Amino acid sequence: MIVAMQENATEEQIDAVIDVMLESGVNVHRTTGAMQTILAAVGPTAGLDLSKFEVLPGVLNVHRISAPYKLAGRAFRPHGTTIEFPNGAVIGGEQVAMIAGPCSIENHDQIFAIAASVKVAGGKFLRGGAFKPRSSPYAFQGLGIPGLKLMREAADVNGLATVSEVMEIAQIEAMLPYVDCFQVGARNMQNFNLLRELGQVRKPVLLKRGIAATIEELLLSSEYILSGGNYDVILCERGIRTYETATRNTMDISAIPVLKKLSHLPVVADPSHGTGRRDMVAPMAKAAVAAGADALLIEIHPNADKSVSDAAQTMYLEDFARLTAELRTIAQAVGRTL
Amino acid sequence: MIVAMQENATEEQIDAVIDVMLESGVNVHRTTGAMQTILAAVGPTAGLDLSKFEVLPGVLNVHRISAPYKLAGRAFRPHGTTIEFPNGAVIGGEQVAMIAGPCSIENHDQIFAIAASVKVAGGKFLRGGAFKPRSSPYAFQGLGIPGLKLMREAADVNGLATVSEVMEIAQIEAMLPYVDCFQVGARNMQNFNLLRELGQVRKPVLLKRGIAATIEELLLSSEYILSGGNYDVILCERGIRTYETATRNTMDISAIPVLKKLSHLPVVADPSHGTGRRDMVAPMAKAAVAAGADALLIEIHPNADKSVSDAAQTMYLEDFARLTAELRTIAQAVGRTL
Amino acid sequence: MIVAMQENATEEQIDAVIDVMLESGVNVHRTTGAMQTILAAVGPTAGLDLSKFEVLPGVLNVHRISAPYKLAGRAFRPHGTTIEFPNGAVIGGEQVAMIAGPCSIENHDQIFAIAASVKVAGGKFLRGGAFKPRSSPYAFQGLGIPGLKLMREAADVNGLATVSEVMEIAQIEAMLPYVDCFQVGARNMQNFNLLRELGQVRKPVLLKRGIAATIEELLLSSEYILSGGNYDVILCERGIRTYETATRNTMDISAIPVLKKLSHLPVVADPSHGTGRRDMVAPMAKAAVAAGADALLIEIHPNADKSVSDAAQTMYLEDFARLTAELRTIAQAVGRTL
Amino acid sequence: MIVAMQENATEEQIDAVIDVMLESGVNVHRTTGAMQTILAAVGPTAGLDLSKFEVLPGVLNVHRISAPYKLAGRAFRPHGTTIEFPNGAVIGGEQVAMIAGPCSIENHDQIFAIAASVKVAGGKFLRGGAFKPRSSPYAFQGLGIPGLKLMREAADVNGLATVSEVMEIAQIEAMLPYVDCFQVGARNMQNFNLLRELGQVRKPVLLKRGIAATIEELLLSSEYILSGGNYDVILCERGIRTYETATRNTMDISAIPVLKKLSHLPVVADPSHGTGRRDMVAPMAKAAVAAGADALLIEIHPNADKSVSDAAQTMYLEDFARLTAELRTIAQAVGRTL
Repeated sequence: MIVAMQENATEEQIDAVIDVMLESGVNVHRTTGAMQTILAAVGPTAGLDLSKFEVLPGVLNVHRISAPYKLAGRAFRPHGTTIEFPNGAVIGGEQVAMIAGPCSIENHDQIFAIAASVKVAGGKFLRGGAFKPRSSPYAFQGLGIPGLKLMREAADVNGLATVSEVMEIAQIEAMLPYVDCFQVGARNMQNFNLLRELGQVRKPVLLKRGIAATIEELLLSSEYILSGGNYDVILCERGIRTYETATRNTMDISAIPVLKKLSHLPVVADPSHGTGRRDMVAPMAKAAVAAGADALLIEIHPNADKSVSDAAQTMYLEDFARLTAELRTIAQAVGRTL
Repeated sequence: MIVAMQENATEEQIDAVIDVMLESGVNVHRTTGAMQTILAAVGPTAGLDLSKFEVLPGVLNVHRISAPYKLAGRAFRPHGTTIEFPNGAVIGGEQVAMIAGPCSIENHDQIFAIAASVKVAGGKFLRGGAFKPRSSPYAFQGLGIPGLKLMREAADVNGLATVSEVMEIAQIEAMLPYVDCFQVGARNMQNFNLLRELGQVRKPVLLKRGIAATIEELLLSSEYILSGGNYDVILCERGIRTYETATRNTMDISAIPVLKKLSHLPVVADPSHGTGRRDMVAPMAKAAVAAGADALLIEIHPNADKSVSDAAQTMYLEDFARLTAELRTIAQAVGRTL
Repeated sequence: MIVAMQENATEEQIDAVIDVMLESGVNVHRTTGAMQTILAAVGPTAGLDLSKFEVLPGVLNVHRISAPYKLAGRAFRPHGTTIEFPNGAVIGGEQVAMIAGPCSIENHDQIFAIAASVKVAGGKFLRGGAFKPRSSPYAFQGLGIPGLKLMREAADVNGLATVSEVMEIAQIEAMLPYVDCFQVGARNMQNFNLLRELGQVRKPVLLKRGIAATIEELLLSSEYILSGGNYDVILCERGIRTYETATRNTMDISAIPVLKKLSHLPVVADPSHGTGRRDMVAPMAKAAVAAGADALLIEIHPNADKSVSDAAQTMYLEDFARLTAELRTIAQAVGRTL
Repeated sequence: MIVAMQENATEEQIDAVIDVMLESGVNVHRTTGAMQTILAAVGPTAGLDLSKFEVLPGVLNVHRISAPYKLAGRAFRPHGTTIEFPNGAVIGGEQVAMIAGPCSIENHDQIFAIAASVKVAGGKFLRGGAFKPRSSPYAFQGLGIPGLKLMREAADVNGLATVSEVMEIAQIEAMLPYVDCFQVGARNMQNFNLLRELGQVRKPVLLKRGIAATIEELLLSSEYILSGGNYDVILCERGIRTYETATRNTMDISAIPVLKKLSHLPVVADPSHGTGRRDMVAPMAKAAVAAGADALLIEIHPNADKSVSDAAQTMYLEDFARLTAELRTIAQAVGRTL
């Protein structure tokens, strides 16, 4: 951390800042320039609250010069993290992984039809929601554990791994037998208690970026899971809120190469939530693979218009099959397979 | 809901849209213009998912023409809602209410010193955090119920009502004896299960706007609580995320008059979180009262720089006393008391 | 335009709104529902200022139901616009066009070296700045017309078309002999006098999206040029301002398919300005082509680090050659050439 | 400027960064830590392009530690700038200045009626537009110089100073006899040629914040004018673009105290453009004065609904008179007059 003092800061002000820095447990290196005094913190700065120093009298600005995350940083594993699943599928390797399924698991026929489609298209991951955070109290709330059982069966028949969203700590234990990967939704990206608990689990976690979260905040949230000893975290870009209203969110495709540069963790893109519109899923899925995504997360349904949730952004199974074929050539164009 | 078709939409496309509308449980009025066909939904449109119609072939755009909330709307109670507390204090009346306290309840002496300050300044509400959602796993996590007991005692001695944040459904029951008002934090604004549960409680709820939530979304969240029969909801503006970095958030002062126009619910402003900087709390508190806020929520601490959390935005007790005096004249200038 | 009245709107309020609508030159269709009265404007609504109606007493909300642009709309030319240049190059056809060059034309050797590189890589457009809008008064301000002459020579030798930014109406005439396409920068996207004047020119215009402009505003600005009779407009996505700071701007890749759907005009992507970082240009260029861009605009320089302007986002010539080869396979994967 | 290297940066990378720094004309102080090497630039860093260093291999991040503006900084004139006008009015002193007038000067009767209203209300500044940047080619484009003559007469009769927007360098000379203060609109905030030219003028300049401009960018733009020797610059907050759609822009009231802290220049607030709605002007005007604004800029018209431009945000004269009286008590409450 570097604290830059104002040009007219007094010696008393400088001393007061130094005192607060020392109390915070760091050593201080002072550089007294002709114009400006600079105080550099040396030592354990990762947990420091910078804003605490910004409001001290005489301070001009404060900057963090080391990344606030360690375990998530690229330097921790320069060659990148690859995550293996029980069905042999890998995320983070040469092959771009396809994760697909319905917003909500609805019934036996729906999830089995979808699982078969995923397999035929060459996908290796089935994703379905069993616990739904719905904005209307009258909307479908999910099938819960019985839904997860259905998904597990459908996945096993087709050799797929399963992904499902966990919303509360209390659900983790019950979900363990049925899911191969826990998804943390955008609204829970900073539910630190949940993240900490998932750090104790020994199954991969797919962590979605919050709708107004910065890339740095996403990496800080992943650090919570990593610091518990669970190194199998997948980061997910799914659209951020901007002033543009033509799409529900603005999908930040540039987050993909930025995350790949800053971190060793695999990156998955969710063009369904990222655009909110079925007709935009295909071009944005292609863009994501072209930009370096390690996996895609796509909502599909045999009767998309009748999906009990997220109908507008859900693809039909035949459109999904066509998209997968097109994505294969994009993947090859960037030196990968799918 | 109005569905406007594209100029070149075919009869089949129009019929298909009408079918989906009818299946959604509304009646359809069709207007066939020289240029464009318009379909108006008549009936229960509040729960309709507009985006479902936007992606149908031939559709140009879809608009909601009635507000998606009913109970929160100004028309429901044109003269506004006033909320009375056991200590006789009122929010939503002529008097601007002052709610103040520490980010975290730390110990007996701290909370008693603060409570005494609030009383001396003329405030009637003591707010303190007992369950803290911290971004670092190593940070102070709050005193829990013992902290709430301390706050209750300190409040009773000084004739104050208490406000504290509830983070999970499981905490509600345990908090009931100690709090006069439940606060829902910005990160939980769309935790619909929690909101629904608070709709069953018969104590007021202070609902904070999410960091990237629109005013409409805030009102929709309040509708969750109201629809459970709990009409005592207070809406809170606490800063939104924008591209500007000079302040931690951008406090949306205009949300105050907009909310007062759209809704009958009282509005509280939180300049501490809204700015994130101690030196900006006073001007923004004044601005909020001038713009029509019914209450202020301010973080104070006898030793602000040493506060275990949110130090940068916490005021010293003596600065708070001075601010309260200044706010009194602002309140009078807009026809109110404080 | 649809004006939805509040539920408790009075007859006088409704009549007053109808009067203002009639004065604005449209006919009014009134629908009186059990809950709500709806007023629909029939006639020439394109120029109406909606906010004028929103503030009238008793009005709940106002929606535009026809697109505010006509000539730019997809319906005007369902099969899309293709633009031919004197050197035989086409933008908007099957082939993805490559437009490249330096931020600023600096001297003979620089622009000739770059032009040769563009040709070798298979590009057909040379872009260079001669009039620079610089944020520092001490920075290089561009070579002006002599610079354009150099670029014209370098382009002709290599069979390239030229693109350069026009900043003021007064420059148009002087630039005409040297440029095949006028570029309008992001800061001038709503310089309506300049746009109107370019509508009288009979050379293509490349119109950049403003840093905080919506997709609709971009299309409205293009309408200015089109309405003057100049139908050869190319729309350019170059990044928008959001809360994210990891990249200089957030490149809105989804704007590409959205613009292709709403409009018949070709779309070019500028990953150099869109990211502001040399190391992000390649992945975002690939993403843009995968998402359907008709052309790319890329800043290159033989000695990028020493470029007199925009050094951080400028690619080296050898990196550009490699990128072009990689883009060719992406283009093929989406059924195009490059 | 501080350049922080990555933990695994090589000696060659560090040397390469030092070379680029030296070439940029600064001296370099190197600190080699156990974990990280830090390079500090000493010397003339104001004009440095930080992004140029960010993309160099081995660099983790780059921070500016001195403010990029000098003349606009509070340290340059700790006691603040006050600007006197020929009619004796002052901006930046104890009295809050009221600047009011129509969006467009329309005719003799309109501008004389408005000027009389301003005088009666106690205002000392008449603002009117003569050159209009309109978004529609068919909209009223302003009366030009004849309009300014009318405004000058109306102002002189009532002892008012005049303010009008300048849109191009070519207009400055012609406007000089008629205006006491040049206004630079939000779209021209980064029209650096215009700013530089206004630096040569010896009349005050009212500089509006761009719709997506940061506070730092506004101060940098003011520096352009100041560096030409024109120290009479007034900064104007007029709303920024955010994701919120309930208001046209989000008026950033917190920019007022932040600007007052960072700079010595007076700050004016424009609640008319800041909200875009007539019914929000009064509460936001009060908020601005309470937060420390030195002046207000308000659009008024004897027949606001019929104003040829900006009708929705224009106040009626009688509402303006009432607002002025209410603002007087707010001004007193913050220790000022009006």
